[in-house]
Amino acid sequence: MIWFYNKYIESGGHMNIKSKKCIEIANRQGAQAVLVTSTHNKFYLTGFTGTTSTVLITSKNQYILVDFRYIDQAKNQCFDSVVLLSDDAEHSVMNLLNQIIADEDIQIIGFEKDQLTVDEFDTYKSMIKVEFLGLNLNELRLIKSLEEIVIMQKAADIVDETIEYIITVIKPGMTESEVDLLLYNKIRTLGAKSFSFNTIVASGWRGAMPHGVASDKIIEENDFVTIDFGAVYNGYCSDLTRTFAMSQKADDQLKEIYAIVLKAQTSALQACRPGVFTREIDKIARDIITAAGYGDYFKHGTGHGLGVLIHEAPRLNQLSTEVLMEGMVVTVEPGIYIPNLGGVRIEDDVLITKDGCIRLTKSDKQLKYIR
Amino acid sequence: MIWFYNKYIESGGHMNIKSKKCIEIANRQGAQAVLVTSTHNKFYLTGFTGTTSTVLITSKNQYILVDFRYIDQAKNQCFDSVVLLSDDAEHSVMNLLNQIIADEDIQIIGFEKDQLTVDEFDTYKSMIKVEFLGLNLNELRLIKSLEEIVIMQKAADIVDETIEYIITVIKPGMTESEVDLLLYNKIRTLGAKSFSFNTIVASGWRGAMPHGVASDKIIEENDFVTIDFGAVYNGYCSDLTRTFAMSQKADDQLKEIYAIVLKAQTSALQACRPGVFTREIDKIARDIITAAGYGDYFKHGTGHGLGVLIHEAPRLNQLSTEVLMEGMVVTVEPGIYIPNLGGVRIEDDVLITKDGCIRLTKSDKQLKYIR
Repeated sequence: MIWFYNKYIESGGHMNIKSKKCIEIANRQGAQAVLVTSTHNKFYLTGFTGTTSTVLITSKNQYILVDFRYIDQAKNQCFDSVVLLSDDAEHSVMNLLNQIIADEDIQIIGFEKDQLTVDEFDTYKSMIKVEFLGLNLNELRLIKSLEEIVIMQKAADIVDETIEYIITVIKPGMTESEVDLLLYNKIRTLGAKSFSFNTIVASGWRGAMPHGVASDKIIEENDFVTIDFGAVYNGYCSDLTRTFAMSQKADDQLKEIYAIVLKAQTSALQACRPGVFTREIDKIARDIITAAGYGDYFKHGTGHGLGVLIHEAPRLNQLSTEVLMEGMVVTVEPGIYIPNLGGVRIEDDVLITKDGCIRLTKSDKQLKYIR
Repeated sequence: MIWFYNKYIESGGHMNIKSKKCIEIANRQGAQAVLVTSTHNKFYLTGFTGTTSTVLITSKNQYILVDFRYIDQAKNQCFDSVVLLSDDAEHSVMNLLNQIIADEDIQIIGFEKDQLTVDEFDTYKSMIKVEFLGLNLNELRLIKSLEEIVIMQKAADIVDETIEYIITVIKPGMTESEVDLLLYNKIRTLGAKSFSFNTIVASGWRGAMPHGVASDKIIEENDFVTIDFGAVYNGYCSDLTRTFAMSQKADDQLKEIYAIVLKAQTSALQACRPGVFTREIDKIARDIITAAGYGDYFKHGTGHGLGVLIHEAPRLNQLSTEVLMEGMVVTVEPGIYIPNLGGVRIEDDVLITKDGCIRLTKSDKQLKYIR
């Protein structure tokens, strides 16, 4: 076994605060260690951005096991982890894991039951002689640290600047896909690594599709256009939706709908503060839309948590049982979608503060007419 | 239950050839139906490109279950499937599945054990009253149809044209990330939807990293540069690697290594034909590199299958037990990587034909000097 000790480990062992939280959650659910297999939690806990690795969090250390392709990257990125090289049959991932488990006398190991496939689980069970326990790690990334908030603010700044830019260049005759490419170039130029998800550019009748990924449809002179996109910056996602009209001659019903969605969105957003049930935030938006007669046309939830994943805990919908807490980052994004006519959605990213919330995305929300 | 019959279904039921193959594989492994949960297999079997759906393949039909967000898309894309709307508690996905299972008297249902998470599996097991059997569906997409080959040729044409373009515009002083963005714009302009994977642009010393995703490193005057990228066109991936030198003054050892890798790559490629073990193809490349004294610097496999996923069956490495067959599409991509010096990899996409193979990627492979 080849151990790469870094300065922290050499000085007597060190666990970062995220790994400590992870092991606390595991202990509470009955496990003494956590086998981490999801790319996002491996990044969250160790900083590793490669595609292949195995992470084990114990009460003493966070370990990351990589092969020769990633050893230099892991040594550079995972400065507070024990980095192990898995480079032959004797030092296979399974053998290395077994050795740590024996060294640290681990009896019950937790795993991410919403991430590990049945096949992978069967393999681990057959190779690692320990009891396995499926964990729910939803709360691990629920409260953002100050460092994370700084990064997420930058990710939000990027989409703000990008939507302001796109409004100056979008023209009738462009395809939705061309707009998507302009968005991509702008976020990359501003320092983002990629989109957070497949960008939605839904114009005219396609606006009625809540998930209308940019297509070859040409944007027409009087279309309403909904753009829903996000940027990944330093591993963290932003998520912004704005809907605007290509001209003053756009459909009057959609203009009326815009005002309703805007009222629902701002009212829900203003209610965000610690202690409020997330389903209450959903209810505020839904009640306004229902009172205006469009309840049947708002069928998705009002928002979701945001972080290293574009969708994470908490959820803001009618069924959710979570309560907002200081340090959460959530989206607030009600919408109305009328088949064969179009749709409107408005979305911000919101940080829950001690006694309220602040918007990370700050783009103006008044209905804009491009020409 | 709302059924959307299309013309095929109305005329008495119809299963496409891919679904027939799927159910044959399932039957052979002991299941009467297949619960398909992976995005790539759902696309492969039904044509659906949305992110949320459930597909069930029985001996009578392929079914796709979607919610209101995707119903129009599913009706348009899944023209030979039975499209069902899951829109309330009574018509939940689980209830609809239970109803089909009862209607068609299904006792044992297969699932993708390498795709379904432990959590999802537990949910299905608790909600659906049937016996579950983990399936290996690797062979499902192994042999490409003529329609698929036409699409994959186009995906390959896009990366060919893009690498030829990039050689005309890359300059010392650019960052790897800037080159990545140029590649992206070109593939999009040529009709690709996205990259197949995070593009590798590894220049100078970073060339020693087989997975050196484009970074902010500046490309220097005499660097060797390895670019490994792919395009997704109509849902299918291409995958191309070329290494070139920024100038004649580039390192002499790397020039020597280039000749060795080129010989290994072309020799392995020429050996591709039906009936040959994939590990034999790997051995041909590996023996040439080992004979030249660089065996310890070629630690990955020689290639992999390619299709709706960037990595699929078969694998071309020392351990693989598969045999090449007509209609497979595989990559051939040996490489040599010297820490602190750099590396070379050359890769083509290859279609196995009746008595040999043809390259889908056709870009020239002689060592190029940019200036």
